[in-house]
Amino acid sequence: MTDTLPDATIRNGVDTTALFATIDAVKADPELGAFRFRATNRWISGTHNRSTVDGFHGAKQDMAHEQPFELHADHPAVLVGRDHAPTPVEYLLHALAACLTAGIANIAAARGVTLTEVSSTVEGDIDLLGILGLSDQVRNGYQQIRVGFTLRGDDPDKLRSVVEQSRQRSAVFDIVTNGVPVSIDVDAG
Amino acid sequence: MTDTLPDATIRNGVDTTALFATIDAVKADPELGAFRFRATNRWISGTHNRSTVDGFHGAKQDMAHEQPFELHADHPAVLVGRDHAPTPVEYLLHALAACLTAGIANIAAARGVTLTEVSSTVEGDIDLLGILGLSDQVRNGYQQIRVGFTLRGDDPDKLRSVVEQSRQRSAVFDIVTNGVPVSIDVDAG
Repeated sequence: MTDTLPDATIRNGVDTTALFATIDAVKADPELGAFRFRATNRWISGTHNRSTVDGFHGAKQDMAHEQPFELHADHPAVLVGRDHAPTPVEYLLHALAACLTAGIANIAAARGVTLTEVSSTVEGDIDLLGILGLSDQVRNGYQQIRVGFTLRGDDPDKLRSVVEQSRQRSAVFDIVTNGVPVSIDVDAG
Repeated sequence: MTDTLPDATIRNGVDTTALFATIDAVKADPELGAFRFRATNRWISGTHNRSTVDGFHGAKQDMAHEQPFELHADHPAVLVGRDHAPTPVEYLLHALAACLTAGIANIAAARGVTLTEVSSTVEGDIDLLGILGLSDQVRNGYQQIRVGFTLRGDDPDKLRSVVEQSRQRSAVFDIVTNGVPVSIDVDAG
């Protein structure tokens, strides 16, 4: 559908007509906004495992991606794995960069701000003393994460304002900075 | 190196000799445990962007994965994207499942517990009223995440205990449940 819209509604590759229509639709019927995302994972061997991302629930219906996505994870040799794929903590950095960047593109489009480049480096510091059980004073996860964005396009102040708005409305930024309750159930047969 | 070790040190695909040697090495020289992971991301168009995961720092040196990994992200059409790849919030679920599962494999191996199956489903609930800016009462990120594990292998009590220990030592579980400070710098030219 998006390909048949006049070019004027597309900015930064974002279909702004569809974006505003989505906001209006959820505003009119808030139940459309209740989404549930899902991944199923299967252990392969050692630290190597694979998730499948396929269906999700949203807009009052079960939906499917256009194709199922398979995501592998592993540890490098220095962390006693076979390095078949990125580590889980690297996937988390990708999730953070990707969410902020998608938000930047959407918000810029909605504001009529043109982007020519959005690139970023995300780094996280982690001390293995936690994970390895060698210190109760050291947390298991990242101690801090730094994101460095480079943006080119319209006026620099407008670009900075777009990044700030993306930070304020990013799902993954909220999850990573504020935390989420996680329950774990186990079927051990 | 791991392929030349006697089979007796490999359990569940985990090289337990290397695992215990790693713990001993970091115990003897804690600076070996200071790791820094990194992803670089580049916006493509709309909500579609791509991260590269290549090098990291650990064990007092800059290291590289055996190959660079490329990770795409996008939104499905219902969220005004082109569905080229999983969403950022789905990558986060994968990171959580993968980290807990790698921990289960390692801990089971260290305890002499045999696994024949580890599978899981991870679900997260998110209400778009937050992201879309339609309510200040609704958070942007997941409101809760549920992980359901199925394990087969040794005695069920031992399997449950392994999952609990993995939860207590998982980097991504810690990040997602407790949060991490994230700084964002912007170069807007």
